[in-house]
Parts: sequence; structure tokens; C-alpha cells
Amino acid sequence: MSKKSKTSAIHETDGVSQSDITNASSIDSIKQKRKAQPDTSTLVANILKGNITALSRAITLIESSNPKHLKQANAIITECLAHANKSVRLGITGVPGVGKSTFIEALGLHLIALGKKVAVLAVDPSSSLSKGSILGDKTRMEDLVKSDQAFIRPSPSGTSLGGVARKTRETIILCEAAGFDTIIIETVGVGQSETAVHSMVDFFLLLKIAGAGDELQGIKRGIIEMADAIAINKADGDNLKAAKLAKVEFNRALHLYPQKASAWQPKVTLCSALKHEGIADLWNLVLDYMKHTKANNYFEQHRTEQNKFWLLQTIEDRLKSDFFNQPEIKKALKTQLQLIEDGKTTPFTAAEFLLQLKN
Amino acid sequence: MSKKSKTSAIHETDGVSQSDITNASSIDSIKQKRKAQPDTSTLVANILKGNITALSRAITLIESSNPKHLKQANAIITECLAHANKSVRLGITGVPGVGKSTFIEALGLHLIALGKKVAVLAVDPSSSLSKGSILGDKTRMEDLVKSDQAFIRPSPSGTSLGGVARKTRETIILCEAAGFDTIIIETVGVGQSETAVHSMVDFFLLLKIAGAGDELQGIKRGIIEMADAIAINKADGDNLKAAKLAKVEFNRALHLYPQKASAWQPKVTLCSALKHEGIADLWNLVLDYMKHTKANNYFEQHRTEQNKFWLLQTIEDRLKSDFFNQPEIKKALKTQLQLIEDGKTTPFTAAEFLLQLKN
Repeated sequence: MSKKSKTSAIHETDGVSQSDITNASSIDSIKQKRKAQPDTSTLVANILKGNITALSRAITLIESSNPKHLKQANAIITECLAHANKSVRLGITGVPGVGKSTFIEALGLHLIALGKKVAVLAVDPSSSLSKGSILGDKTRMEDLVKSDQAFIRPSPSGTSLGGVARKTRETIILCEAAGFDTIIIETVGVGQSETAVHSMVDFFLLLKIAGAGDELQGIKRGIIEMADAIAINKADGDNLKAAKLAKVEFNRALHLYPQKASAWQPKVTLCSALKHEGIADLWNLVLDYMKHTKANNYFEQHRTEQNKFWLLQTIEDRLKSDFFNQPEIKKALKTQLQLIEDGKTTPFTAAEFLLQLKN
Repeated sequence: MSKKSKTSAIHETDGVSQSDITNASSIDSIKQKRKAQPDTSTLVANILKGNITALSRAITLIESSNPKHLKQANAIITECLAHANKSVRLGITGVPGVGKSTFIEALGLHLIALGKKVAVLAVDPSSSLSKGSILGDKTRMEDLVKSDQAFIRPSPSGTSLGGVARKTRETIILCEAAGFDTIIIETVGVGQSETAVHSMVDFFLLLKIAGAGDELQGIKRGIIEMADAIAINKADGDNLKAAKLAKVEFNRALHLYPQKASAWQPKVTLCSALKHEGIADLWNLVLDYMKHTKANNYFEQHRTEQNKFWLLQTIEDRLKSDFFNQPEIKKALKTQLQLIEDGKTTPFTAAEFLLQLKN
């Protein structure tokens, strides 16, 4: 049965009313079709063939909150692991209005023209609240979405950044196993999401536009330190002069920081995503970085460090959520925070009290 | 019995040999004296009177790893709480060689001359390894140590920064209850110790000296962002010109950062701790800061936020240490980290495995 007819069958069941049902066994048959999920080895085999439907299904398992799905997802990821890890992982951040979607589309099309396969993912913890997503509106990447060399997946929803980050981290592995050699992960930089994205990519790009006055004002603390490059977008027409000035200012700021562990000196470039200008230069910069960090062994070391970081992070997140999600702890924490606010207890006495409730 | 004769009694017991003992009851009496510890209410009453012996004893209880001592320490701190919180808490960081001890002595003497009572504490997690401490050598603060308006206490030892930070945090409360109105906390900035100190003080000072060339190179990531002021020390004689240049450069760097939550614009000052120059200016800056942050309510808000942060931090530290210190987890973690290094598992599968061991 083709994918299309299966989808239709499901929609029919969803739309059916009780009075329409004349044959109970036909419903059973529809339900059976609906539940039919390929087994792990079939999914893995299809992912390794680059089958997008299989990839999407496996990602849906990763994103599920059903423990059974999570178990299958873990099995799939473990199988895929040996085939992953052969990509460039590129993180992109920038505030809304900076032209992120246009930039990613331009870069993605450039990479596809070079024969690459591009997966675009997002880390946007806010999407679970707004039920939207920075990549939800795929029409903003009209041309890229049409290419069968590109795979675009909106941010998984999740109540916590930790959850969203974990899902994206695992999705990277599946995309790589499916043959995507360039993984682009975008974030709007809500809360700590840049830090999360930074900890899962090889190269971190800050996208900016030139404005009036002090270019560095309003940049979130710590973000310049994370950047391997700053691309000043919309560097065209009347904007070009301001963009060039911004480049000087950012270059100066970048030099104020101590050397990175990668021994890479971050660069500032100009581009116009709309006019597809400066995109090739930016990509060449990424390639320079890859060459540099592979030569000094930072690349592999960094990926191993990232994996170790994620192991510890996952455990810490779980220890915390297991503790703080207990109803009696929630209630007692509220009381203790109030006592702190009133100067009636110390943080340490309050912590001791809460920790003893656990036992 | 005076403090001095008591100390002697203890030393005698320590030095006594079995053959010297002729009268068992006299040993019992010595042991009793040795063990005699003032009760909680006596200690608290004496701390509130500003008695340094009582203060030191209570701090020793905080630093103890004996659960009974910790329980008494908690009781003392809770009693002292209502009398604390009426000070300026000043954090000072700077690499070795910058003249921190000389600076703290100069500032301390200036404050004492103004009628203030100054406590100097340290957060130096490395001291537990080296058995030394940045404040261990009190001779470097020769004049300050002689004043009965000053109290100097070396860094508590501890295996973790979390432990050292907790003890220092609690010691602040006791010092304040004992009438010390200015608490200076110094750190050499090992690991994350600046962040820990920053989270327990009102005002954070970075001490620097002018060098040749790029002044900002080699400054630890994030530290400039934390500073409420940068004091360039040794700004005297031949150094003065370089110090003035450094001031310009640091001022420029400080302006690159987004506005602080305190709405305070960090300042750069020159000083010569050795010649006692610029010390009064620096102190006036701290007073300006206090006035500014008390007027916009940041001061109180910030202290409450710090307390809430410490509550959560203490719980997280304990959850982590309770988990990772289990022998079976230690062993399994080592194996899982190796599997990650070999690309044989994902961070998330490994985390799941370890978390299940716990249950």
C-alpha cells in the first residue's frame, strides 16, 4: 500500500461518524492499518537508503512521549550511530528580522548546487507554547523545500529546552545516517537555546544586520564568545556602508576575546542572502574552519567532548526534573522560597529541608 | 578559664605520653575541658556581641564534616539571620601577581579608618589540594591582621567548589551578625570560583595591572561581563602611562557589553595599593553603586535572587553528588564514557542506562 492511500485511510477513520459504520470488521481492518508501524530494522534499512518517509517516522518516534516509542527510537538511533558522524554541523542564530530563513535558503541552495544534502533543523523551545515554530512556516524557504536534496524539520515541541535539545541532538544522528552531509540547526536564541545549539554543532554562526549606532549593544551576553563567525546580512544597496562599518566594529570586538580552544580566530563577513551574495564566501569560511580543526584534532575531540557533555547534561536534567516534579516538593519549595524572601531561612537550611522530604 | 590557658591544656593532652599518666581522673578532666563546646545560644549571644572567638568557633562548625556540627551550625546561622544582611559584600578577583593582598590590606585599612568593621574571606577551592590558601599567609596583610576591627579567615577547605562556596556563603552571615559591615571575598579565579563569588556579593571588582600590548588578551571568558568595576593596580611611577592606556582600553571594552540588570555602568579606576593611592576613589565608587542600586531596588532584589539561586544550586549539587558518588554509578559511568568515545552509544542511551541503575 502506498503512503498516500494509507494517509487517506486514516483520515477517513478520523472523519467517520458512528451512524456511518455498518461493518465493524472494516473498522478493525482500518484500525489495524492505522497502527501498522514498520519494525526497527525496516526503518533503519530505509533510513540508510535515504528514504525521507522512514526518516520522518523515526524522528516522530524520537519526539513522542510514549515510552514504547522512545524505546524503539533508542534502538533506531543506536543502529544508525555507526553511519552518522560524517557531516558538518552548523549552528545559526540571530534575532527575528535578521533574515535567517532567507539566509538558510540561500546557503542551502548553494550547498545543493555543490552536490550536498542539507538537513535544516531548529531548536526553539518557545514553539511548544505558541504551537508555532521558526521553521513551521516552510513557505519562507520555498525553493529549498522543493529540493529532494534538502530535508527541513521544524523544532520539536517540548516543555523544556532540555527536552527539545535532546530530540534535536538525536535527530541529527538520524539525518546523518540518511546521508545528509550538512546539518544546519537554527535557533532564535530564546533563553539558553543558543548554548544548547552551540553544544551540538561544529561551527556556530551569528547572523546580524547593520543598524544605526553601536552595533554591539543589545547582543545577548556571551553570544559573541560562542561565534566562530559573524555574518552581517542585508549588506546591499544603501545598507552596504553601514554593514562595512559594523564589520570593523565586530572585528575589533572579536579580538578582545581570549583565544578559543579550537585556536580558530573568528571572522566577520558580509552577505546579502536576498541577492545570494557572500554566501559562497561564508561557506568557504566554514570549510577553512573544518580544515583547521581537523588538522589540529580539535574537530574529533570537540565532538567527543560534546557527547560527554550531553551524557552528563541528560543525567542532571533528569535528576532535577525527577526531584522538582514531585508534588510535595513543588509545594514545599514554594513555601521555602517565600521564607527566603522574608529573610526567615537560609538557602542552605531550606535546601536541607527539601532534600530530606525526598527521603 | 581564659582562652590561652585552655589552648595550653589541649596541647598538653596532645603531647602527653602514656607513661606520664599517673592520675586517670586528671585526664578525664582534661578531656572534658577539651570537649566542652559552648551551646548554640551562648555562641549566638557572643557572636552578636562581636566576640571573635565565638565567631571563629561557629565558622569551624560550618566547616566541619561532622553532621552533628553541621546541625549546630545550621541552628546558629538561623539565629543569626535576623541580624545579618546589613553589610556591603564586595567580591575581588585577579590573577596572582596583581597585588590582591596589598590591595585588600590598603582598602581594609582605609575602611577601618572610616570606622568600619571589615571581614576578609576567600573562596579558593584549590586550597584543599595544596593545603595552602590565598589568605593562609596572613603576614601579607600584616597591618590589617593586627586591627581588632578586622577579621581575616582563609578559604575553607573542601573537595568541591560547591562545598567551599556554601561554607563561605554561611560564614558571611555569621560575620554580618558579629557586626562586620564590610565583607570582602577574594578569589584567585580557579575554575568557576569567580562565578561562585559573583553570586554571593553585591559588587564585583576585577583587579588588573597594566602590561605590554593587548590588555584584554588572557582575561578569562565572561569575567569582564561580571565586573562592576575594574581597578588597574600598580598605577604608579613608570607604570602610570601604561595604566592610563589600559584604562582607555578597558573602558572601551566595557561599553561593548549590553546594559546590566542593575542599570549600573561599570567603571575603570587606577590605583596603587602600595602607595595607598586611588583606594578612597575606589571605595567611593562602591558607595555610588550602593546608592544607585538601593535607589532602583536592585540591591534587595538581587540579594533575594542570590538566595533563591543558592537554594536551587545547593539542591542540584546534592542531587548530583548523591547520584555520581555511588560506587556502581562511578564504575558504570567510566564504561559508558568509553563507549561514547568509541562511538558505540549515544549520550542519551548511556544516560538512560545509568539512570536505570539508580532505581
